[in-house]
Amino acid sequence: MSVVVSGQYVAYSFYRVRPEWRQLPVDEREAGKDAFADVLEENAPRFDTLNVYSTTGVRPDSDFFLWKITQRYADLGELGAALNGTPLAGYLETPFSYLATTRASQYTSARRARRITPFGSPYLVVYPFVKVRPWYALPEADRQRAMDEHIRIGGEHPSIHNHTTYSFGIDDQEFMTAFECDEPADFMHLMLTLRETEASSYTERDTPIFVGQLLPARAALDRLDGVAAGVEA
Amino acid sequence: MSVVVSGQYVAYSFYRVRPEWRQLPVDEREAGKDAFADVLEENAPRFDTLNVYSTTGVRPDSDFFLWKITQRYADLGELGAALNGTPLAGYLETPFSYLATTRASQYTSARRARRITPFGSPYLVVYPFVKVRPWYALPEADRQRAMDEHIRIGGEHPSIHNHTTYSFGIDDQEFMTAFECDEPADFMHLMLTLRETEASSYTERDTPIFVGQLLPARAALDRLDGVAAGVEA
Amino acid sequence: MSVVVSGQYVAYSFYRVRPEWRQLPVDEREAGKDAFADVLEENAPRFDTLNVYSTTGVRPDSDFFLWKITQRYADLGELGAALNGTPLAGYLETPFSYLATTRASQYTSARRARRITPFGSPYLVVYPFVKVRPWYALPEADRQRAMDEHIRIGGEHPSIHNHTTYSFGIDDQEFMTAFECDEPADFMHLMLTLRETEASSYTERDTPIFVGQLLPARAALDRLDGVAAGVEA
Amino acid sequence: MSVVVSGQYVAYSFYRVRPEWRQLPVDEREAGKDAFADVLEENAPRFDTLNVYSTTGVRPDSDFFLWKITQRYADLGELGAALNGTPLAGYLETPFSYLATTRASQYTSARRARRITPFGSPYLVVYPFVKVRPWYALPEADRQRAMDEHIRIGGEHPSIHNHTTYSFGIDDQEFMTAFECDEPADFMHLMLTLRETEASSYTERDTPIFVGQLLPARAALDRLDGVAAGVEA
Amino acid sequence: MSVVVSGQYVAYSFYRVRPEWRQLPVDEREAGKDAFADVLEENAPRFDTLNVYSTTGVRPDSDFFLWKITQRYADLGELGAALNGTPLAGYLETPFSYLATTRASQYTSARRARRITPFGSPYLVVYPFVKVRPWYALPEADRQRAMDEHIRIGGEHPSIHNHTTYSFGIDDQEFMTAFECDEPADFMHLMLTLRETEASSYTERDTPIFVGQLLPARAALDRLDGVAAGVEA
Repeated sequence: MSVVVSGQYVAYSFYRVRPEWRQLPVDEREAGKDAFADVLEENAPRFDTLNVYSTTGVRPDSDFFLWKITQRYADLGELGAALNGTPLAGYLETPFSYLATTRASQYTSARRARRITPFGSPYLVVYPFVKVRPWYALPEADRQRAMDEHIRIGGEHPSIHNHTTYSFGIDDQEFMTAFECDEPADFMHLMLTLRETEASSYTERDTPIFVGQLLPARAALDRLDGVAAGVEA
Repeated sequence: MSVVVSGQYVAYSFYRVRPEWRQLPVDEREAGKDAFADVLEENAPRFDTLNVYSTTGVRPDSDFFLWKITQRYADLGELGAALNGTPLAGYLETPFSYLATTRASQYTSARRARRITPFGSPYLVVYPFVKVRPWYALPEADRQRAMDEHIRIGGEHPSIHNHTTYSFGIDDQEFMTAFECDEPADFMHLMLTLRETEASSYTERDTPIFVGQLLPARAALDRLDGVAAGVEA
Repeated sequence: MSVVVSGQYVAYSFYRVRPEWRQLPVDEREAGKDAFADVLEENAPRFDTLNVYSTTGVRPDSDFFLWKITQRYADLGELGAALNGTPLAGYLETPFSYLATTRASQYTSARRARRITPFGSPYLVVYPFVKVRPWYALPEADRQRAMDEHIRIGGEHPSIHNHTTYSFGIDDQEFMTAFECDEPADFMHLMLTLRETEASSYTERDTPIFVGQLLPARAALDRLDGVAAGVEA
Repeated sequence: MSVVVSGQYVAYSFYRVRPEWRQLPVDEREAGKDAFADVLEENAPRFDTLNVYSTTGVRPDSDFFLWKITQRYADLGELGAALNGTPLAGYLETPFSYLATTRASQYTSARRARRITPFGSPYLVVYPFVKVRPWYALPEADRQRAMDEHIRIGGEHPSIHNHTTYSFGIDDQEFMTAFECDEPADFMHLMLTLRETEASSYTERDTPIFVGQLLPARAALDRLDGVAAGVEA
Repeated sequence: MSVVVSGQYVAYSFYRVRPEWRQLPVDEREAGKDAFADVLEENAPRFDTLNVYSTTGVRPDSDFFLWKITQRYADLGELGAALNGTPLAGYLETPFSYLATTRASQYTSARRARRITPFGSPYLVVYPFVKVRPWYALPEADRQRAMDEHIRIGGEHPSIHNHTTYSFGIDDQEFMTAFECDEPADFMHLMLTLRETEASSYTERDTPIFVGQLLPARAALDRLDGVAAGVEA
C-alpha cells in the first residue's frame, strides 16, 4: 500500500574534510576535488536536484552540503557509494545527514504531494525541526489557525521560499525545514517575527541551523583548501 | 528461575569504516571485505537471522548494520570476536549497538514469547524507544486501550511488519522497535498518523531512527568504497 | 572524622581498544595482552575482587570492563598506573569509569556497611543511577515503603544478586547498581516488573546499562582481536 | 525585500590546534603562524573589525577566536577559504563558530541597526544566548520593563560594553551576547547581579561562555606552542 | 570600576595524555615529563597555589589536573602557553578547564573576598555547580535559611574544607565547588546528608565530579605511563 504517488525523497548530506587532507600535495588535492565533482556531475541527471552549498568560514562542523532530491530512494545509496570511491572520501567526515520525503500538506488546500523545485536562490537555510508532542493533541482547527498565521507572515516575505518536507519515522527529526533566500539577514528578520507566533511556542527543537551558499561543485570544493579562493573573490 | 522459554536475543550492531581505510590499495580493501563477509557466512547457521542492511549515503554516522537474532547470548560475543579478527576491523568503528530480547506481549492475546522471523522486506526501519515514566503508572486498561489504537492503525498498513523487542535493564532503551517495509515513504505516512495517537504522547525518546536497505553482505560492504557501485546500480 | 569502618571502594573501569591496534602483527598483540593480564594477576591479591567482564559484540563503546573492589583508595590509582605501563595501553581508550563506596543501607536493618562479595555469576549488569531530587524530599516512611516493594520483587528472583553501592559526591551518579545473574533475559524480566513500581517513577537516569560476561582476563582480551575466539566457542 | 540597511554580519570563529602540530620542527610552526597571520592582515581592510582573542590556558576546547564584523556575507566564506589555504589549517579544528547580524533593538529608542564598533578593551566575554519560548508570549510592555532593569544595571558598570547581535534563524542561538571589559572579575560581578533580575529567569541557555584576551594575531598564535611566551610575559 | 580588591582567579585545568604517547621510547617520555614538571616549578612562585592532582585509574576522561590560584588573570594564559611549549603538549588533550574568581560570600558575615588557601589535604573533590533559576527569585531570607542548614551540616565534618568560588559570566557554571578531604568516602557521607536539604533541591547541575589525589608534579606524571608506579606504591 504505497500512498506516495510521484513523491520525492529530499536529503541533505553534510561533509567536513579532515584537516590532514590540507597537508597533501596540491595536485593530489586537485585530483580529489576533480573526482568528487565528476561523480556529482555524472549522477546529477538521475536526480531532480543535486545542488552544492558551501558553509566554509561559517559553520564549525561542516564545509559543504548536498541538497539531493530524487523520486527513487536507491539513488541516495548509490550516490553515497560512488562518492565513497573518490580519493577525497579517504579524508571526508559526514557530520550530519538528513532524510525527508514529500506529502500533501495538511495546512494548505493542496491535494497532492508538493513537488520540491528549488529557485536557485544564492542562499539556503536548512534545519531539522521537532514539535512538542502536545501540538499533535491540539484540535485540527487550532493547528490550522496557528499555521495560517505562520503562512501569512511568510507570505509577507516573497523573496524567501519555503521547501518543508516530512521525516516522521525515517529520520530523527519530524520535518526538514528549508528556505531559499537572497540574503541571510533577511531570513533572520522573518524568523524573529515568527518567534512571537503561537505555533512557535510548540517548538521542541529547531537546531542545528545551516546557512549554505549555492556554488558550483568545484567552487565549493575549492574553499576546502583556498586554492582558488583569490580568483573567485 | 529463567522465565524465557525458547526466547531470542535480538541485536542490532552498527558499523562505520574510518575514512582512511579508503586510502588503502584496492586489493587490501577487497581482502578486508572478503574476510568480513566470510565470517558472517560461517556464523549465519548458528543464528536464526543474520542480515546486513546498508545505510550508505543516508545516515551520517554509520555505513551498515547487522540484524542478529539468536537463542544463545554467547553467540553475540563470539561473532563480535570473530569479526574483530578480520583486517577490516582495524578500520571499523561501532557507533551504535542495541540489545533486546523477546517476551510475550502484554497487549495481545499471545501467551508465548513471539518468535521474531523477518519477512525479508527490502527496507528495515529500526530505533530505540523509551516511554515517559508516567506511562507505567497508568491503569492497565488505559494502556491496553492506547495500544489497541496503535495496533489498529498498524493493521491498516499490511505491507509494514512490526518486530518490537524488549530491552529493559539490558540496554539503554526500553524497546527496540523494528519495522520491515517495501518503501521508506510508506513508513513515514504510518508514523505521521501514529503521532496523533494517545500512546504517542507518552514517548520520551524514539531516536536515532535508522533506515537500512537489505543487501547481500558483500554488496553492502562494496558500498564502503564504491568499487562495485556502478555494477549493482 | 571517618565514618566508614572497614568500608570498600567499588569501581568499574571500561576499556575500548582503538581499531588500529588490530593492524599490529599478531605477536605484538599477544605480548600486549600478556602484559595486561599479568598486571591484573599481580595486583589481584591487593583487591577484594578484581574481575574482568567482556562486552565484545554487544556494547558499541567498550570491549571489556574491570570490577575492582578494595578497602584502600590508593589501589585504584596504582593499578591504573601499572596498566598504563603495558604496551596495550598505547591503544586503549577508557570511555567510562565509575567510582562508589559501601555504607550501611537506610532501607534494611543492617547497621554496618555491607561487604560486597561477588557470587561469580556468569553475567553482571551494571549501570549508574540518579534519582530525581523530589525523592529526597519525601518523608522517610514513604521512601521506606517504596523501597520495600522493590526489595520484595527482587526477592522473587533469587538467582539475581544485587550489589548496589554509593557514589554521592565522589562521581557523577548517586548509586552504582550492579546485578549478577545467570542469563541476561532473566534480568530484563525483573526490570520490566520493577518499571511499574512507585520507586521507579523517581528515576532521573539509569543509563548506560552494561551487560558483561565474566571471563578469565586472557579470554576477555582475546576477544579484542578474535585470535582465540574459535577455540573458546 | 531586504530590511537590513547597512547592517553588519558579526561572527565569532573558534580554533583549536591539534596537539600533533606541536611535534613539528619549530621553523615549520613559525611558517604556519606567519602565513595565518598574513592572511588575517591581508583581509582586515575588507572587514569593519577582525580581532584575535586568545583563550590559551583557560578554555579546554579552543586556543583562540576571531571576532569578524563585515557588511558583506561573502567575506566570511572567502576569509575561511583563505585561512584553509595556510599550512596551519592542516592541524586546526574549529570547535565553535557563531553567526549573527545587527538590527534596531526593540528595547531602546534606536531606529536603525546599531553599528557594532569594538572599544578595543583587553577582554571580550562572548556567549550564545537562547530565551525560553514563553518570553516571546509576554506582552511587549512586560518585556520592555524586564529589559529596562537589565539595561539600568548594565549602565552602572560603565567599563563594560555590550555588543549584542541577532542570530534568529541563521544559527543555533537566538542572540550572540558580547561584552568588552577591562578585567574578567568585573564581569562576574555584573552577571551575579543580573542573575536576580526578572529577565534572567527566562534564560534557556547561555553557554558556552568564552573569555578572550585581545592580542595581536601573531602573539595569540605564539601561545599555541609557547615559543614567544617567555618574551611577552 | 573594579569591585574586586585583592581577589583571586581560581582555575582547574584537566589533562589527558593520548594513548599513543605511551608508545614512545621511555627516554622521550621521561624528557616530556621532566619539561612539564619544570615549567610548573618555574611558574609556581607567581601563583598563590599551583597544585597537581592525579585522577589516574579513577576518571575515564582525565589523568591529572592543576589547581591554579593567582591574583593576575594573565598568569593563566602565560602558564598555558609555557606548558604548550613542552614535548608532552604534543600528546596532551585538555578535556575540561574551569575558571572562577573569589568574592565576599552573601551568606556569611565576611565582608571581603575570602582568600582561598588550600590546606594540602590528600584529596580534592571539585565540580562545577549550577542552581535552577527559581533559586535566584527566592527572598534573600529564604536563601539565607537554606544556606545556613548547608553550612551547619558542613561544620559537623571538620576534616572537610570547602573552597567555593564564583564563575557567573566567566565560565559555563555558576560556581566551582571544591572540597579538600582526608578520604573520599568521608565526602560521600557528607554529600549523602546534604542531598536531603532544602538547598539541594535547587540544584540544576553538579557534574562532572572529580576526585583528585594530591601528588608532587613528577609523581602525578609518572602515573601516565606507570614507570615509577612500583616505586611509589
